[in-house]
Amino acid sequence: MNRHRLTLFDTTLRDGQQTPGIDFSVEDKIAISAMLDQFGIDYVEGGYPGANPTDTAFFADKRTARAKFVAFGMTKRAGVSASNDPGLAALLQAKSDAICFVAKSWDYHVRLALGCTNEENLDAIRASVEAARASAKEAMVDCEHFFDGFKANADYALACAKTALQAGARWVVLCDTNGGTQPSEIRDIVAKVIAAGIPGENLGIHAHDDTGQAVANSLAAVEAGVRQIQGTLNGIGERCGNANLVTLIPTLMLKPAYADRFETGISAEALAGISRLSRNFDELLNRAPEAQAPYVGASAFATKAGIHASALVKDPKTYEHVPPEAVGNRRKVMVSDQGGKANFIAELKRRGIEVPRADHRLDSLIALVKEREAEGYAYEGADASFELLARKILHGLPEFFSVASFRCMVERRYDANGNLKTVSEAIVRVTIDGEEKMSVAEGHGPVNALDIALRKDLGKYQHEIADLELADFKVRILNGGTEAITRVLVESHDSTGARWWTVGVSENIIDASFQALMDSIVFKLMKNRDMAGLVAAE
Amino acid sequence: MNRHRLTLFDTTLRDGQQTPGIDFSVEDKIAISAMLDQFGIDYVEGGYPGANPTDTAFFADKRTARAKFVAFGMTKRAGVSASNDPGLAALLQAKSDAICFVAKSWDYHVRLALGCTNEENLDAIRASVEAARASAKEAMVDCEHFFDGFKANADYALACAKTALQAGARWVVLCDTNGGTQPSEIRDIVAKVIAAGIPGENLGIHAHDDTGQAVANSLAAVEAGVRQIQGTLNGIGERCGNANLVTLIPTLMLKPAYADRFETGISAEALAGISRLSRNFDELLNRAPEAQAPYVGASAFATKAGIHASALVKDPKTYEHVPPEAVGNRRKVMVSDQGGKANFIAELKRRGIEVPRADHRLDSLIALVKEREAEGYAYEGADASFELLARKILHGLPEFFSVASFRCMVERRYDANGNLKTVSEAIVRVTIDGEEKMSVAEGHGPVNALDIALRKDLGKYQHEIADLELADFKVRILNGGTEAITRVLVESHDSTGARWWTVGVSENIIDASFQALMDSIVFKLMKNRDMAGLVAAE
Repeated sequence: MNRHRLTLFDTTLRDGQQTPGIDFSVEDKIAISAMLDQFGIDYVEGGYPGANPTDTAFFADKRTARAKFVAFGMTKRAGVSASNDPGLAALLQAKSDAICFVAKSWDYHVRLALGCTNEENLDAIRASVEAARASAKEAMVDCEHFFDGFKANADYALACAKTALQAGARWVVLCDTNGGTQPSEIRDIVAKVIAAGIPGENLGIHAHDDTGQAVANSLAAVEAGVRQIQGTLNGIGERCGNANLVTLIPTLMLKPAYADRFETGISAEALAGISRLSRNFDELLNRAPEAQAPYVGASAFATKAGIHASALVKDPKTYEHVPPEAVGNRRKVMVSDQGGKANFIAELKRRGIEVPRADHRLDSLIALVKEREAEGYAYEGADASFELLARKILHGLPEFFSVASFRCMVERRYDANGNLKTVSEAIVRVTIDGEEKMSVAEGHGPVNALDIALRKDLGKYQHEIADLELADFKVRILNGGTEAITRVLVESHDSTGARWWTVGVSENIIDASFQALMDSIVFKLMKNRDMAGLVAAE
Repeated sequence: MNRHRLTLFDTTLRDGQQTPGIDFSVEDKIAISAMLDQFGIDYVEGGYPGANPTDTAFFADKRTARAKFVAFGMTKRAGVSASNDPGLAALLQAKSDAICFVAKSWDYHVRLALGCTNEENLDAIRASVEAARASAKEAMVDCEHFFDGFKANADYALACAKTALQAGARWVVLCDTNGGTQPSEIRDIVAKVIAAGIPGENLGIHAHDDTGQAVANSLAAVEAGVRQIQGTLNGIGERCGNANLVTLIPTLMLKPAYADRFETGISAEALAGISRLSRNFDELLNRAPEAQAPYVGASAFATKAGIHASALVKDPKTYEHVPPEAVGNRRKVMVSDQGGKANFIAELKRRGIEVPRADHRLDSLIALVKEREAEGYAYEGADASFELLARKILHGLPEFFSVASFRCMVERRYDANGNLKTVSEAIVRVTIDGEEKMSVAEGHGPVNALDIALRKDLGKYQHEIADLELADFKVRILNGGTEAITRVLVESHDSTGARWWTVGVSENIIDASFQALMDSIVFKLMKNRDMAGLVAAE
C-alpha cells in the first residue's frame, strides 16, 4: 500500500526563539540549522529577517544544504503596496528558499490587532504570496488563530486559507496559536476545511501545548488529512511550547497506527540518533535535559519496580512500547540487583575494561558512582571522568604528577589610564617525580587562567599535552540557593580528533573546574599510552 | 442538559512513587493525601501496604476525610487460597475504604510473568474482588496492559474485565501500562469494551505519557464513555510519568468540549488554587517547578513577542485560551529585544515608571536594551536589572556608593593537618560620600566571598541591606568554547517577601557575578525608598 509522505517543518529557530529564557545567537542558529538539516527535516524556519539584527544577519546566507530554508514574517501592511512595504522587502531579500507569512484568519483579530477591514486582510495575504512567487520563492501562509477564527467565523477563516492557496501558496498552515483547541475539534475543523476545497496535501498543522496536547493535536490533524507538521526540538516555544518533534517523529515512524500509512524524510539511522540530537540541543542551550521526556529522556526506559524488572529481563517487549535502541536510548533497571550490575559491566566493556561479575571491586565502583552521582557528578555526560574513576578503582591509575596547591585571583581595578579593567591570574604548584614546579598565567577569567597555568610546565609530559585543547566549558548550579553545588563539565580535544568530557563538582566553582581540568589532562596522558580512550570518538 | 459526573482518582502516592528520584516518607504521604483530599479529589490511592514498611505504616490509619482512601496490591497468587494469601491479607487489614487490585489482562503476561493458566488468573481476580467485598470494602481492578492485551487477545482481555465486574468490582480500570497506545486506538477499544457489555460508568482509564499523549488518551477514553480518570500531581510517575491531573482538571472544567457534558467534584474555588497546589507539591519534593507546564507553569501565560503583546494589552481573550486567574496563575509580558515599543511602555508602567511614547529617552532605552541583549544580557529573566537600567536612562539613578576595586582569590592547599582544602577570599574597596572602606570576607566560593565582602560594610546603608539575601545563582556560558561569555543571574529576596532577579555579563565569571550583585544591592536601596520595585511580590 502506498504510504503518504508527511512533511516535517521545524520552527525551533523562529517560534522556539519565543521561549522564555532562550535567546539564539547567530552562531547558535547556524549550529542548530546544520543539526536539523543533517537529521532529515524538510523545512527549517530560521527566523524573522528584518525584525532584529540577529535574524537579519542569519539570513545573509542560505544555511541549509538539503532542507528548504524558510524566512518568516508578516503579510504586508494594509494601506501600503507590496513594493513599498519594508518588512516584505526584508523577507524577499533574505537568502531563503521559501517565505512563510503569518496572516490573521480570525476576523476579530483583523479588527483589533490590524485595524483594517476583512477585505484588506485578504488582499494583504494575496499580495504577499504573489510577491514571494514573483521572486521565485516558495510561499506558505500560517493562518494565525485558525481554529478559534473558524469557530467564530468559519467563512472568513476559510476565505483566508483559500486566498492564500489561490494566490500560489504551496502550504496553508492551520495554527492553534493560543493552544486551547481540543483534538476532537481539530479533527472536526480539519475535515471541514478539506470538504470546503483545500486539499490535505496543501495543509499543515501548527500546534501549541497549552492543554498538554500539542502532539495529540498534530497527530489528529494528520489523521484528518493534513500533510505538514510544524514543531520544535524538545518542544520549546512560547508559553507551554510547540509540538515536540522529538516526540512526534518516533511515534510516526514506530507506531503502526501511523507508520503503516505515512512516511517521513527521516531515515531509520537518523531516528537512532534522535536521543543524541535532543541532548546536543539541550547542551547547546545549557538547558537541563528533561529526564522524563518521551523516547529520549534518561528515564524514558528506566524502571524501578521490582515486579517489572524481573519480567523485563525475560522479555523487554513485555514492558517496553518500542525498543530503546530504535531511538538511540537505552534501558535502565535502577535497582541494585543483577540488572543494574549488567549495565555497568556492559559500559565498562564498551571502554575496553574487562572485569569479572563477581569481582568485589566492581561493587565498590558501583557504590562509589551512585554516591558521587547523589553529590552531583553526572557521569553520563562525562565519559572520560567515568573511565578514569573505573580504571582507578579496578586496576589503579598511575600518578603522573600531583598538584600541591593552586591560587586563582581575579582583580578589578583602575589601570594607569583611569580605565576600569579586570585581570585574572593563577599560580599552580605541580610536583613531578619529586620535583616541584611553579607556574603563573593570566587568562580571560579565573578558570582560563588556572587551565593555562596548570598546563604551562608539566616537565617531561609537556610535549605530550601540547595538542590538548579546551573546546567547551559548561556550568550548572545544582540545588540552587546558597547551599548550591556547582557542576562543571569540560570538553577537551587533541590533534587526533578525539573529544572527551570530564566533570568536577564542588560548592566552589574554581575547585569544580580544577577537578574537570585535572581529569582532562590525566585522561590525555592515559590515552597517549593506549591505556584509556579506546572507544572511538562519537 | 444533565452532565455526567467524572470521578477523579489520584495515584501520586502509589504509581507516582515509581518516579525516578522520588521517594515519599510517611510524613510526605500524610501531607500529600491531605492536599488531595482538600482539593476535592474523589479517590486517593495511598500505596501498597505489605510491600514496604512505609506503605504499611501509612495504612495504619485512614488518611482522608472526604476522598475514598484506596489500598493497592496484586490479586491473590495462583495456587493459594484467598484466605491464605499474605499479600491479600495485608490489603484487607489496611485502613482503607477501597482496594484496587492490579490484575493481568494480557494472556502473554499471565504466561510469562505469573506462570499460571488463563483460568487461574480469572479465578484470582474473582476471589480477590470477592474477598474485598466480604470485608465491606469497595473493590476495583486495574487491568494491566489492557490495550496491548486487547490487541493480542481481545476475548481474554474482556474476560478479565467482565470477571472483575461480575465479582462485584465498582470500577474496572483500563490501563495503558506501557504508555504506547494511540488516542485513536483508545477510542476504538473503549467503544468495543462498552459494546461488549461493560458500562462506561464502571470504567476507568489509567494512561502513561510514553508518547506524550497521556492527557489526550485520558480525554479520548472519556469521550468514548469512560467515567473515571486516574492520574498524578504534576504528571509524576514511572518512565515518562502518568496522566497529569493538574493539566486534565482545568481542561475538563474550562473547555466547553468537556465542561458542557461533564462535571467533577472540584469546585471553581479549588480550581483557582491549582497553581498553588502544583507549586506546593514541587516544593515538598524539592523539585524545580516546570516553567512551561500547562495552566500552572510560570511561563504558561507569558509572552515575549512584540506583535502579540500589543494586542494582548487591548484584549486578553485574543491571546489567552483561558483566563489565568481561573487557575490561579497570572499573565506576564516579558521584555526582550523582540518587544515592540508597546511592550516596553507596558512593562515600565507595571513598575510605576511613566514615560510618554514620544520621549526620545525611550528610544535610547530600547536601543540600549537591544544592544545589551545582543551582548548576552537577558532582561526578561532579570526584572530588577531591567528596571534599574530603565530608571537610569529615563530619570537617572542616585549613586549610593561606588566600588573602587575588588580582588577575589581562591586557593587550594594543604592545611596544618595535611588535608587538602580550598579557601575563597574577597577584598572590596567601597567609596561612600567620598570615604573609602575596605572589607575582606571568606566564602564557599569566589562569588559567595565577593558577595559577603561587598555587603559587609556599606556605612550608612548597612542597616538597610541587613535583610537582603541571595536566594539563587545561575550561570550560562554563551557562545561556548574558549571565547565564551558568561551570563550570571542572581535571585535576591528580603524580609518583605519580595524577590527579584539581576543579571551580569562578562567573559570573566567573577566580573559577571559582580555586576549582578551590585544591581541587587542598588535595587534594594531604591526599593527601600519606594523608588523601585513597586510591583507586588509574586
